[in-house]
This record gives sequence, structure tokens and C-alpha cells, in this order.
Amino acid sequence: MDDVVIRTHEKVRLRDPILIEGLPGVGNVGKLAADYLRDQLPAKPLATVYSKFFPPQVYVSDTGIIRLVSNDLSYWVAPPEAPHDLLVLGGDYQGISPEGQYEVTEQVLRYALQLGVKEVFTLAGFAQGRVVEEPRVLGAATIPARVEAMKKLGVVFSKNDPGGGLIGASGLFLGLGRLFGMEGVCLMGETSGYFVDPRGAEAVLKVLAKALDLTIDFTALEAKAHEIDRIAQRIHDAEQRSGEPGTPGAPASREDLGYIG
Amino acid sequence: MDDVVIRTHEKVRLRDPILIEGLPGVGNVGKLAADYLRDQLPAKPLATVYSKFFPPQVYVSDTGIIRLVSNDLSYWVAPPEAPHDLLVLGGDYQGISPEGQYEVTEQVLRYALQLGVKEVFTLAGFAQGRVVEEPRVLGAATIPARVEAMKKLGVVFSKNDPGGGLIGASGLFLGLGRLFGMEGVCLMGETSGYFVDPRGAEAVLKVLAKALDLTIDFTALEAKAHEIDRIAQRIHDAEQRSGEPGTPGAPASREDLGYIG
Amino acid sequence: MDDVVIRTHEKVRLRDPILIEGLPGVGNVGKLAADYLRDQLPAKPLATVYSKFFPPQVYVSDTGIIRLVSNDLSYWVAPPEAPHDLLVLGGDYQGISPEGQYEVTEQVLRYALQLGVKEVFTLAGFAQGRVVEEPRVLGAATIPARVEAMKKLGVVFSKNDPGGGLIGASGLFLGLGRLFGMEGVCLMGETSGYFVDPRGAEAVLKVLAKALDLTIDFTALEAKAHEIDRIAQRIHDAEQRSGEPGTPGAPASREDLGYIG
Amino acid sequence: MDDVVIRTHEKVRLRDPILIEGLPGVGNVGKLAADYLRDQLPAKPLATVYSKFFPPQVYVSDTGIIRLVSNDLSYWVAPPEAPHDLLVLGGDYQGISPEGQYEVTEQVLRYALQLGVKEVFTLAGFAQGRVVEEPRVLGAATIPARVEAMKKLGVVFSKNDPGGGLIGASGLFLGLGRLFGMEGVCLMGETSGYFVDPRGAEAVLKVLAKALDLTIDFTALEAKAHEIDRIAQRIHDAEQRSGEPGTPGAPASREDLGYIG
Repeated sequence: MDDVVIRTHEKVRLRDPILIEGLPGVGNVGKLAADYLRDQLPAKPLATVYSKFFPPQVYVSDTGIIRLVSNDLSYWVAPPEAPHDLLVLGGDYQGISPEGQYEVTEQVLRYALQLGVKEVFTLAGFAQGRVVEEPRVLGAATIPARVEAMKKLGVVFSKNDPGGGLIGASGLFLGLGRLFGMEGVCLMGETSGYFVDPRGAEAVLKVLAKALDLTIDFTALEAKAHEIDRIAQRIHDAEQRSGEPGTPGAPASREDLGYIG
Repeated sequence: MDDVVIRTHEKVRLRDPILIEGLPGVGNVGKLAADYLRDQLPAKPLATVYSKFFPPQVYVSDTGIIRLVSNDLSYWVAPPEAPHDLLVLGGDYQGISPEGQYEVTEQVLRYALQLGVKEVFTLAGFAQGRVVEEPRVLGAATIPARVEAMKKLGVVFSKNDPGGGLIGASGLFLGLGRLFGMEGVCLMGETSGYFVDPRGAEAVLKVLAKALDLTIDFTALEAKAHEIDRIAQRIHDAEQRSGEPGTPGAPASREDLGYIG
Repeated sequence: MDDVVIRTHEKVRLRDPILIEGLPGVGNVGKLAADYLRDQLPAKPLATVYSKFFPPQVYVSDTGIIRLVSNDLSYWVAPPEAPHDLLVLGGDYQGISPEGQYEVTEQVLRYALQLGVKEVFTLAGFAQGRVVEEPRVLGAATIPARVEAMKKLGVVFSKNDPGGGLIGASGLFLGLGRLFGMEGVCLMGETSGYFVDPRGAEAVLKVLAKALDLTIDFTALEAKAHEIDRIAQRIHDAEQRSGEPGTPGAPASREDLGYIG
Repeated sequence: MDDVVIRTHEKVRLRDPILIEGLPGVGNVGKLAADYLRDQLPAKPLATVYSKFFPPQVYVSDTGIIRLVSNDLSYWVAPPEAPHDLLVLGGDYQGISPEGQYEVTEQVLRYALQLGVKEVFTLAGFAQGRVVEEPRVLGAATIPARVEAMKKLGVVFSKNDPGGGLIGASGLFLGLGRLFGMEGVCLMGETSGYFVDPRGAEAVLKVLAKALDLTIDFTALEAKAHEIDRIAQRIHDAEQRSGEPGTPGAPASREDLGYIG
């Protein structure tokens, strides 16, 4: 089979569309952000991306219906006065091998190119290894003009972070995107890295909303953040009582944090 | 070489055939069921599937004859009054890499499509991690109509199981099958997951027999189940006497359970 | 690059040639046997096999000259009265992934097919996990006639050995060879599996010499076997004196055993 | 996408160019040497090599600009009286799988061949596992004439080193290069193997400068070596005071050694 198969659900013509990528990763910040954006716009299904570089897996819905793991492109037609329609890429997995990362990213970029995409925003988490009360948004970009534009929106460009560069889809969409003549920005929401983090996703989306002049209602995302807080607090209290801090992954209740969202 | 090589032994025309897949996996339930079905129908050899995504291995028969590991398609011509001929897929291995799973599954589905297959049953085990006295059959399907049809046959569609979805051939044949326009059902026999389980296979086959209006004699399968029970009991008794439970894989006698069937 | 690159050094026409494979493996029995056969016949260089499925490695000779790792085909023109010329395949490595095993084997078989090969002997070791004083030769074959022929030469066909079949080149050359219409035999010399074993190689070659009516002088191979014996004895003595048995791989002196030959 | 993508920045015609390879590896000796040579000549950017066999990673500059990991070819036009222009290959990574090593090396060699390359120097480190005060340069070559020429420049050709041959790009560029009709030499600077070693790089470059009649100012490289010495000394002193030798990788300060350069 082809390494990557993209099935188009609807033929569309988009006006100077911008691609926004958010796939599973650190704190699931990118995926939470992209999925939330898609639901709030709301964006409509455009195409589904299958690949032999994803796990050989189907998900089963509550009603017993299977669905092959995939990435998914949705589109949003902006109001006439806005300059850019949007393409949102979310999904179940990143490619599960280095080669797979390259292949999936390249095929999605080719597809996006045909739709006229010249600009990419990638959304990700940045693991700080400690609780982050008010997450900043760190940035990286393909050209200095984008760096300057993002700085004006409060994005932090740090000399030391991310030290080892970006590994995975959020970096690759920019790095390979350049080979297709696209420019772009990676927005990284600070997060502990210990659990799914809607607050990091909110920080990232707020920058994106400013950059693209979008109005997003964050009520539902904040509710999700509070839910995570409550669970984290309950675990913390239980550990205090037992006098024994939980090790990551040990108590089932702690693991619940990873599955919300 | 081609990633997957399918050698046809006999050219056949089948009436609206249904593909039934049962490959090695949890408790070997799927393989036991597919092999038993093939023998009882009996189905005739149709084609052999070789792939570089299987291990580089040959088996040696009792008489010293080698055979390259493979998957195998058999066919059964139903009586004139029955609507569907059957194709049964069994074999030594699933593809041993994620990419291999996709490749082998896709090539077998393409082959099945040429024979007119529009419907797939996949047979598998569902590991409960505990001894299961009377195994239920859990289900997943491609469309609601199939879910309803299976519920009428006693198949359980559980909101929580399988939680992480299905990994491997039994899920992939349905997930990729949809891309070929096929519908289908996965039948999962509950099993401990600790050893080869003919009882899980019997449970699955009984549902399949009802769904396809087949008459199957379960005598031999039940004999095999009793044999497993006897071995398990003997090991249990020995462990009781020694006051020391066996660790998985430690005593040779316990491992025997894995090789029956 | 092509997955497998075969460079022909000399164009030859061979009379009904038989392919003899002996690559590194258990006790290096197959490789020792094939290399010894090549040197004794002597067979001449025919072609070199390179592949990206071998390690990215060059060897450096005593004089500082590098050589890319490879497999190598040599040919031997039999006397006019003998029915078969011979092709001998030896080399540094088997393919280092399952896929690589299939690819390399298939390309070598295609090459052999073009030279007219219809029969294959594969040479290997069979690990007994204990010292073997007088190694037997176990067999496996593609058809019953070959089993019978080998039995007459003293080859043992055991119902239980090899239990899990054959993994690697010696099995694959027969298993894939069948898909090219070739018949063949695998000869497995019993060996401890702990070190390089010229005695296992000798046992295998003696059967092969009888099967193909070859005259082979075993003096040098027996000398090598005695050398291994002496080293093994010295290590054993040292361990006795220190009262402490060596663990495999721990003392450097013991490891020497693996590098002879 | 293509396995390897080479983007040419400038079309050049070179006079009988020699390729000099230095990629990350033992002590980073090869990379340090190639990068230093490129800067000192100075060589100009010729082409960038991207590959799905590199990690899916971008680096981020101090100013926030991303760059996809790559290998890079630079060229240097020699003075009219010198017989060879130079091509220098450096980069972030070697191919990260055996197959990737072969693919990247082969594509770069094909590219070099089109530019007229007939000779290759590969630069590498040779790990001695102990502090090396005055690193020798060990050698390996494709033909005896090159061995003799290098001996005259003080290169050591040792019967025992490198015992297991050369693994990775420095060996492969010679081994595969031969298949393209290229001859070459590998120069290996002795190094401890414990940290980045500019002194090993200097030793290698001094031989190369003599071989190619280049004038190189080593001031900056020696400064870097002194910096490494100072850090190593400080760590050593701290360990002496605490009475506890550091284990490789344990104290953060010791790890700093790996990131200089």
C-alpha cells in the first residue's frame, strides 16, 4: 500500500489557507489545542490521513463502531473580511518511526500545498519538569520576521529553550515545510510534562487567536483544566495522608490524569 | 522481492464470499477458531501468503520436510441454498512490524476484493487477566447495523472493552477493509490470556456459526479444551504441593500449555 | 541504492550447478564449512553481494586495506565425468533484519537461478547447549526423496529437532528456493553453541562430500579443531585452579574461542 | 518522499575535487576536524543533504530560527597551482539506521561523482578508552599505494587496530566509494572516547594538511582543546576533593564536556 493514504471527504477551494498542526505529544498540549480549535471554529472534516507508519490499530467507540487510527484535516472558511481560511490537522498518533514522521509530514504538506497553504502554525507542549502555574508560550520560527511578529504577541524566544531543538511533528512541519516554500511558527505551551495539560493548550491558543484574529470561547477548555486540577489535588491529598508520594504511573488514580481530554 | 507474495493454488469463482480471519494472537483464540473452522467445513487450499514481514523462518515437519512460514487462504463452497461461500484466513504469524501488519493485511484484502468479498469476520481473543469459566464473546463492528445483528446473537458490546481499541490483524482487517468498501465484525472470545484457549475459540465459533447458519461439530475442540484443563490442573496441583506458585515461563510443564493446539 | 547489489567478477557458464550456502550462525558451523569447502576445491571468485541490509561496516586487513562487508559467491568447475558444477556462498553476515534476510536471500537465489541452479544445500550448526563429542548431522529437506537420500548418508531426521524450525539463511534458502522451483537439503552439524566449532563443520562437510562425491582433505580443519580444544582445555584448567567457573563472555581468554577460524 | 534529498545552493565546476568527510562519531573527532577545515579554508556552502534516515528534528538558533537537521557539502576552490579543489562534508547526524547509513552515503557519493570526485578522505576518532596525551593518527585505505603514502606522513597502520573494522560513515564512504571507482583513506585520531576531543581533530587535520598541501591555522582549535582541558581538570579536582570519582554521565558538570565544540 502507499506509505500514506489521504482520503478527501469534500472538495473545497480555500482562500490563502493557513495550516495549524496539533498532534499528540508533550502534555498533549498540541492535540488539545488543535482539537479544541477545530470544535470551536467549528472546522469541517476535509480529509483523513491513514498510514502504515501509524500503529496497526483501530479504536472502538462507545457504541461498538471501529475506526482506523488516523490524522485528520478539517477546514474553516473564514468570514469574507478575514484574509485566511484555516486548515486544522489533528489526530491519534504521530508517525511511530523517524522515517514515518518524515513520510507522514511530507505527504500532508504536499496535500496542503495543493490547497494553497504557504504558512504553518505548529502547536506543542514544552516540558518544564515542574508544575507550571501560569504557562508561558515559547516560540521558534522559520524567519526573523515571524519571530518579531510573535514577540509582539508575548511569545518568548529563549536562547536556551528548547536546547536540543524540536523533535517530532511540530518541528518537522516547519523544517520540511521550508523545503516546500512555506514559512511558519511553532508555539510551545509550557507544561509540567507529567499529565495532559489543558492550561498549556489554552495559553497556546490565546496566542494563535491573537495572531489570526480569531474569537475563541475558552469556557470548555478551562472547565477541563479545573477537572485536571481537582484530580491532581485529590491524588496529592491522598499521598499526603499516606505519607508516601506516588511514583509516576504507580497508582491507578494518578494515571487517570493522562486520559482526560 | 515484493513485500507480500500470494500464490494461488486453484482458480475459483465464489458466490458473494465472506472472509473469516483468525491469526495467532491473545490465547491463540482467533487462530484456533479459524483453523478448526477450516478443518470442519472442510475448506480447501486456495492460496498461500508469503511476506518479508514474517520471520525469516521455515518449519520442519515430523518427516523432515520444510515449509516457509505463511498465511493461508482456504475456500468453502456453500450449499446452493446458502447465500455466501466462505474464505478462511489462517497462518503462522501476523506481520512482525507495524508496517508489516498494514502491508500483509492490505494485500490479502486486495486479493479478497478480487474474489468478490464485501464482508469480513475477524476472530480474536480478549485477555481478561483471570480465569474465565464461561467466556462471553465481545464485539466491534464497522456499522451500527452489524452491531445490532450481533447483539441478537448474544455478542456483548461493552462501553469500556476493549478500552484501547484493537491492535493487530483483527482490527486492521476491519479498519483497512472499510477503505475497500467492506463491512465487518470482530468477535473476541474472552480468555485468561495466560495460555492457548480452545474454549474461547469455541465461544467465538458458536456465534459465527449462528451468524452464517453453519453446522459445526465441536467435539474435537472440546476435547482439546479438556486436555488443556487437565494440564492446568496438574500444574496447579504440583504448585500446591511445593507450596510455590509457578512463575510464567519458569517450569517447563507450564509452558506446555502454550504449545497445545 | 538497490537493496542488494551483486557484482559479477567473471562471466561463467556452469553445468547444472548446485548452490551450497554457509553463512555465519550457530557455532559458525555453516560458515566454517562453506569457507573450508571453497578453499579446498578450490572454488574461484564469481560475484560479491553487497546490501544495505548488512551492517554499515568495512573490515581492515593486516596491511590496512579496507573491504566492505559482503557475501561472496565462488564457483567450482567439476571434472567432466561429474554431473554438477558447484556454487559456494559464504560471507561476513546474514541480513541483519527479517526483511533483510528475505531480500538478500531472494536476490542471491535469483542470481543462482540465472546460472541454472535447481538444487541447494544449506550448511548450519545445531546448538545442543552441551559439549558434543561426536557431532551428528541433522537434516531437513524440501521433499521426501531428499530426506531418504540423506538418511542413507547417515543424516538424522528427528521428529523433535529442530523443534521451532529453522530461523535465518539456512532455512530461508530452502523455503524461498522452493518458490523458484529449487529443491534442497539443510545439513545441521551438532555443536555446543558456545564457541566456533570446526568439528561440527567437518561432520557436515563429510556428509556433503558423500552426497556430491567430492574428495576433501580435512587435515587443516582438524588442526583447527585441535587448536580450539587446546584453548578450551586451558580455560577449563584455569577455572579449576581458581575454583570459579567462567561465565560466558567474562574472561577475555574464553572469548578468544569465538574468534578462531 | 525520496529517501535522501540533496538541495544544491550553487552550481559549481570543480577541478578534480577531493571529498573530505567528517561526521559526528567517536569523540566527535571527525566532525570537529571537518567543521574546522571548512571554516579555515574557508569553504562555501554547496548543497544541503536532508533525509528521512536522520532524526525527525529541527534545531533552533539563539535567535529562534529553526533549521532541519542535515548534512552539508561545502566547496573550496584551490589556488591555480594546486591540483585539487575540495569538497567538505559535515553535518548533524549520520544515518540513524544501518539502511540509512547506506542510503545517505550512497546518495552523497553519487552527487560527489557527478562533481568529478575520484578520491575521498574520511576523518574519524579512534577510542582508546584512556586519556591520550599525544594522539597518533591511525589509518586505513582502499589500496596499498595510499597506505604507503600515508605512512610517509606519519600515519600508523596497525595490524590489530581497528580490530573489528570501521563501523559507520567513515568506513562506508570508502567501502561504497570503491563501488563508484573512488580510492581513499580513513584518518583516525586517537582519543579517549569519553568526551569531545579537539586534540584528536588537530592530529587528523595536520596529516590531512600535509597530504593535501594545505596551510591551516590551528590557533582556534588549540584554544578549544585548552578549554576542554580546563573543564576536565576542574572536574577531576572536584572529584579528588569529594574523594569520589565521577561515573561517566553522572555529574552534570562532567557532561558539559560533551557539548563543547
